[in-house]
Amino acid sequence: MIRIHFQHKLDELRERLLVMAGLVEQAIDRAIEAYDNRDASLCDLVLMAEPAIDRTEREIDQLALDILAMEQPTAVDLRFILAVIRINADLERVGDQAVNIAARVKELQAIPEADLPIDIPKIAEIASTMVRMAIKAFIDRDEKASNDVLLMDDEVDKLNHDAFHTLGELIKSKPDVTQQALNALVISRNLERVGDHATNIAEDVIFWVSGADVRHHASAMTSLPDQIAEA
Amino acid sequence: MIRIHFQHKLDELRERLLVMAGLVEQAIDRAIEAYDNRDASLCDLVLMAEPAIDRTEREIDQLALDILAMEQPTAVDLRFILAVIRINADLERVGDQAVNIAARVKELQAIPEADLPIDIPKIAEIASTMVRMAIKAFIDRDEKASNDVLLMDDEVDKLNHDAFHTLGELIKSKPDVTQQALNALVISRNLERVGDHATNIAEDVIFWVSGADVRHHASAMTSLPDQIAEA
Repeated sequence: MIRIHFQHKLDELRERLLVMAGLVEQAIDRAIEAYDNRDASLCDLVLMAEPAIDRTEREIDQLALDILAMEQPTAVDLRFILAVIRINADLERVGDQAVNIAARVKELQAIPEADLPIDIPKIAEIASTMVRMAIKAFIDRDEKASNDVLLMDDEVDKLNHDAFHTLGELIKSKPDVTQQALNALVISRNLERVGDHATNIAEDVIFWVSGADVRHHASAMTSLPDQIAEA
Repeated sequence: MIRIHFQHKLDELRERLLVMAGLVEQAIDRAIEAYDNRDASLCDLVLMAEPAIDRTEREIDQLALDILAMEQPTAVDLRFILAVIRINADLERVGDQAVNIAARVKELQAIPEADLPIDIPKIAEIASTMVRMAIKAFIDRDEKASNDVLLMDDEVDKLNHDAFHTLGELIKSKPDVTQQALNALVISRNLERVGDHATNIAEDVIFWVSGADVRHHASAMTSLPDQIAEA
């Protein structure tokens, strides 16, 4: 009976993390759309959603603490709970990046648009897809999909690196678009950080799922107490 | 007897986290000195230290998992263990920023030095002091010092914001230093991220220490099971 209650709590933890992921995905999507369309009201929506994201983060942390305090989870459940705690923190920081982008778009509204030879929407699409894929990998306990997210991070890093050099060249030839180019550079780096957080999430999924597999390989469990290794 | 063993394990966790902090502080200090002196061999030292930092991070996570699996920690011990897990992750990311800066300094070596009207060493000093203060606050369980770290983050953010605008103006008037200015901009943002991680660490210290205080205020414990609130 206690075991069923415990399982129910773990399900609740998972569901709340998915709510958190939904809030954060919406924030980053809105921030990206705000950039594409120079839409100030979308920026405001992103800024207004931040307190709810922060509150949800704290609630999930508290629930995880409650579960850890309630009874002694097995090694696999422990790994799940720790993965949730870490994914939760990374999601909150993706939310921060959405806020950073929204704030930057509001600054951009004060200056004329410039045609820049870099593809921010493409970097944005890969970065937000990474977050979505990492969360889907979490839902599906999918180690392979998690590894795909890690590979996509190399692409975001490369695009961001290229943007840095392209914008540098552009500024030299057209100093009058410096401000627009620097803002695009910062947004590109914000998106790179979103990709970094998605990578962290994917790594946490691997940490959790490979831990679950490890249960079947006693030799890998040497650092865990015996009664847990046999659970 | 079990309780003494448990306390010993917590001490070990704390000590290993301080080793981790020492490695990371050294990495960021070396990266900053490498920038100040354009010292490629210091950059190599930073890059070579990264695997040890990553390994230490994993060992601390595993030790924390072992402790959680071993027996049922009280609410206060749980908060301590979770704070360690999160601080550990932030320290590892400070190490990543040291690597980013070192890599950027190596790129800078290929281009002539330029006299830039921003004070990177000042931003660097505040950011690295924040890391050191946050770790000291952890050692001393010092909530006030943690709050001081949060205030310093505003200063780093402001200096970074100013650097962004100053370098933008500089590039417009002197397009031939664009590359140097963009590199300085990226390093300035790397340092801002170091400040962000120090802020996260300070917040984790507050989370842990205020949790310890909460033990004496039963009304604040409603979300924890009774047997823990009374521990």
